[in-house]
Amino acid sequence: MRVRNKPWADDLINSHPDLVINNKEKQIHDLNFIRQDKPLHVEIGSGKGDFLIGMALKHPDIEFIGIEIQKSVLAIALKKTLQQKVTNLHWIWSDGSAITDIFVNQKIDFIYLNFSDPWPKKRHEKRRLTYIKFLQEYKNVLKDDGYLQLKTDNRHFFEYSLLSITNFGFSLKEISLDWHKDVIDNDLENIETEYEHKFSQRGQVIYRLLIKNFK
Amino acid sequence: MRVRNKPWADDLINSHPDLVINNKEKQIHDLNFIRQDKPLHVEIGSGKGDFLIGMALKHPDIEFIGIEIQKSVLAIALKKTLQQKVTNLHWIWSDGSAITDIFVNQKIDFIYLNFSDPWPKKRHEKRRLTYIKFLQEYKNVLKDDGYLQLKTDNRHFFEYSLLSITNFGFSLKEISLDWHKDVIDNDLENIETEYEHKFSQRGQVIYRLLIKNFK
Repeated sequence: MRVRNKPWADDLINSHPDLVINNKEKQIHDLNFIRQDKPLHVEIGSGKGDFLIGMALKHPDIEFIGIEIQKSVLAIALKKTLQQKVTNLHWIWSDGSAITDIFVNQKIDFIYLNFSDPWPKKRHEKRRLTYIKFLQEYKNVLKDDGYLQLKTDNRHFFEYSLLSITNFGFSLKEISLDWHKDVIDNDLENIETEYEHKFSQRGQVIYRLLIKNFK
Repeated sequence: MRVRNKPWADDLINSHPDLVINNKEKQIHDLNFIRQDKPLHVEIGSGKGDFLIGMALKHPDIEFIGIEIQKSVLAIALKKTLQQKVTNLHWIWSDGSAITDIFVNQKIDFIYLNFSDPWPKKRHEKRRLTYIKFLQEYKNVLKDDGYLQLKTDNRHFFEYSLLSITNFGFSLKEISLDWHKDVIDNDLENIETEYEHKFSQRGQVIYRLLIKNFK
């Protein structure tokens, strides 16, 4: 997700070291603020934060972390977090590929990939968040019985992800080729991201899969 | 596929033992008519035969077999085979579940499941052609490097099949969540079944996957 540069982003991020870890500039990966007695859910590529803020408000017994590489986007999410006084949600300004270094002692119960950049060109395959290198990172940081959920509106990215994920060895637990219809039909919980809300308003199909880690 | 009973079906089938194996009534599974020097492709649930007749005409170097349980449906396919003078195509009147007994010495290069009955009710799961018992049968009769292709318009059957197939251990080689669009965009070969033609005319999405056997 790209947004216009926010001149206030630096100040806001720097003045909230209790809420944002600056792994991008300072290679900090101190997760002391995480309550070890709670399940830990992490969104990689958390964008403007609507999904995690919605989840954190709904699930006070879970600790949430959003990882985002774009500073201005992260700053928007942080601003919303402060406005809504969410206490079980923290942010890491970082590359997704740094997660193995970040989550060394504290393993993750649930990873979310929401509407990740599909990088449609074949030569950009390695940047897709379901490329084998990233899957290995997820395996490293997930608990043995941890889960990963992926949602997207991009058909080719979803097809690619299905091949990549199953051939890597992750076990497919659930799949939906029309997630919003299933949510309505079966009265399921679904917190929407900003993108998802826009897409579903247009009647576009949303794909979703849930996979389980393996030892 | 259900059709009205054809009074001429018995006579036609019985008068062409060179083209039809009657495994259903007589437990015959003598595949002597198959040319061992050609690749063998088998459709399970071959319906009225349009798919296999199209394939057989297009690929004279491949030996095709259609397996169908409904006698009247099989008879329609046989009639078309005779009319079009197809020589590399044979039929077996049989349950799909008899294939391990039928293909003992002659293993299969390619299995096709086209628009199989989705059996949507949970209590009918065991009848779905991608239920684990059937997957084991396919593994038994496929060559070590054999393939299986599945096409369907039924979303829930496709979702079920994806879970069943990948958790069984088959390796997903290709997947398309809009097969007819991919066929047009990439100029791919696609012989349509009777159902498929009807569905695609209505603009309905067709799903397709290709899996590879494993040792």
